[in-house]
Amino acid sequence: MTSIQPTDAPKNVVLFGETAAELDVEPGLESCVSFRIARNAQDLKQALPGAHALICWEASEQPVRDALHHEDELAWIQWPFIGVDAVLPILQDKPNIVLTNASGVYDWPIAEYVLGLVLAMAKDLPATITMQSRCEWRFRETEMVEGRRALVVGVGGVGRAIAKLLKAVGMSVVGVGRRARPGDGTFSEIAAAADLSVKLPDADYVICAAPLTAETKGLFASTLFGRMKATARFINVGRGEIVDENALLAALQTGKLAAAALDVFETEPLPPESGLWGSSRVIVSPHMAGDVIDTTKRLQELFSRNLTSFLKGQALSNKVDVSLGYISRS
Amino acid sequence: MTSIQPTDAPKNVVLFGETAAELDVEPGLESCVSFRIARNAQDLKQALPGAHALICWEASEQPVRDALHHEDELAWIQWPFIGVDAVLPILQDKPNIVLTNASGVYDWPIAEYVLGLVLAMAKDLPATITMQSRCEWRFRETEMVEGRRALVVGVGGVGRAIAKLLKAVGMSVVGVGRRARPGDGTFSEIAAAADLSVKLPDADYVICAAPLTAETKGLFASTLFGRMKATARFINVGRGEIVDENALLAALQTGKLAAAALDVFETEPLPPESGLWGSSRVIVSPHMAGDVIDTTKRLQELFSRNLTSFLKGQALSNKVDVSLGYISRS
Repeated sequence: MTSIQPTDAPKNVVLFGETAAELDVEPGLESCVSFRIARNAQDLKQALPGAHALICWEASEQPVRDALHHEDELAWIQWPFIGVDAVLPILQDKPNIVLTNASGVYDWPIAEYVLGLVLAMAKDLPATITMQSRCEWRFRETEMVEGRRALVVGVGGVGRAIAKLLKAVGMSVVGVGRRARPGDGTFSEIAAAADLSVKLPDADYVICAAPLTAETKGLFASTLFGRMKATARFINVGRGEIVDENALLAALQTGKLAAAALDVFETEPLPPESGLWGSSRVIVSPHMAGDVIDTTKRLQELFSRNLTSFLKGQALSNKVDVSLGYISRS
Repeated sequence: MTSIQPTDAPKNVVLFGETAAELDVEPGLESCVSFRIARNAQDLKQALPGAHALICWEASEQPVRDALHHEDELAWIQWPFIGVDAVLPILQDKPNIVLTNASGVYDWPIAEYVLGLVLAMAKDLPATITMQSRCEWRFRETEMVEGRRALVVGVGGVGRAIAKLLKAVGMSVVGVGRRARPGDGTFSEIAAAADLSVKLPDADYVICAAPLTAETKGLFASTLFGRMKATARFINVGRGEIVDENALLAALQTGKLAAAALDVFETEPLPPESGLWGSSRVIVSPHMAGDVIDTTKRLQELFSRNLTSFLKGQALSNKVDVSLGYISRS
């Protein structure tokens, strides 16, 4: 990208999504951008030829995949999630398109959600809610989270935010990343992905905050569940396809691990016939960990900031390494 | 209390409770103590005459109140809870008996429990559990706890532990104590009890961690609930009788506040006919916030430490100001 010149034609920027709205750019740059709003898949196909940038506001992945066959000038796609697995395949042979994700917008919400799940499991809250529905008063002793060990798989923005919050309440946190690294103020240690199975037996809470890639697809299956403590709990806020759900259910039923909380699933919405719904050892939530009331406002801020950078020819925030499938921080 | 002499007769120490066990004292002091174990109310009445100390292991308050008419030499009662409201009345005319409570044992467990409730409410977890029981997938946007304001009523050990944990996750915390004091590293401000109603409208979470005293009995009633934000949530881990449960239900039904989580009740177990059980805006738990798996071990450590001090004539930990009804920290 080169710096924009006053004589240049405005950049055509497609804003895609039912709720898409024009963005604010830095004063003086208004004339450098021409917005095309695409509410649906049909709009998108028509808007993409001649467009220089595509900013996606929402989760309609199939229309974007379909429409990308119609781009010709596209230099940048802004994706509204952290996980970019849905658009990666089509970008493999389009090296000129820069892909940015929404890292930062969801990190802290997801971290709070995970801490809420950890505490809910330690304090047996799901059973309390269920007993309440039967007017059942049954005292139990519960567990502390202070001093417990968490293993966070994925040390990007989300994994790091999770680690910070768990550490803030007195847990110790080991990370698992692509490569082994020394500990820092947040992780006591970062182990290499290859050593995941070595680290699993120490963990009271195993938390998956990894992107879906060729390496992580189906990663958590019977072998890894078999390495966990019988008292361990497993939380997935990464992507559903990282976990073999049938293997997880079998591991829970045979006492290989104690409980699980899943916010993401192989198929979403989770089909009614899934055995996960009815398991008293599983908390099922509808892919909502990262979404808080001001998410739209925070996305808008990120999009506006990145659009200003794009118009000025400056580096964009949150550039995804398309060969890895996530932001490379090293 | 005066220091024990080798020629003194051993101190008679009654250990009361079904699970009561002899305690470890400092080496060399074993011969200075003679234990009497009282498993039930009848044992207790027989054991108390001539006893110098009574160490209570569990929650049988009525037997202790009855048996206290039979004491003659008693100089110390160790109570196994923080709240001493059950034994206070009978000690008003026995100024020679020192009362100690179990402050410290329950503080951190209760703080974790409260943080779990705060996150559960912010992330709408009770609704998620209820929807799961119906195989219902319904996405919602939830709230952050970071940046939210908590008002903690009661700034003793429990209130302070709660404040520390809430602050650790990015909330701001105002305390309410007997007297106004400047803020410190934990509370941004401590307001006087007389100013409680002035502070209520600012709070997103109002948390009662106060002892039951003449001043706090029935404190949270319609007037105070009417001062709260319509979006506020109320948590009670103090004592049930501090809250007017009917007034709370009415306030929830008329939208004066958004939700409540109660671990303590006017009558425990909470009677089946209570409207609290069936309210979707209330979390009911069976007075279990403070009890974690190693509570007995932690009580035993406290009891042993205090017994050693007693035998050596040294100051006891956790001495309750009987006129106040709690430990005076100022």
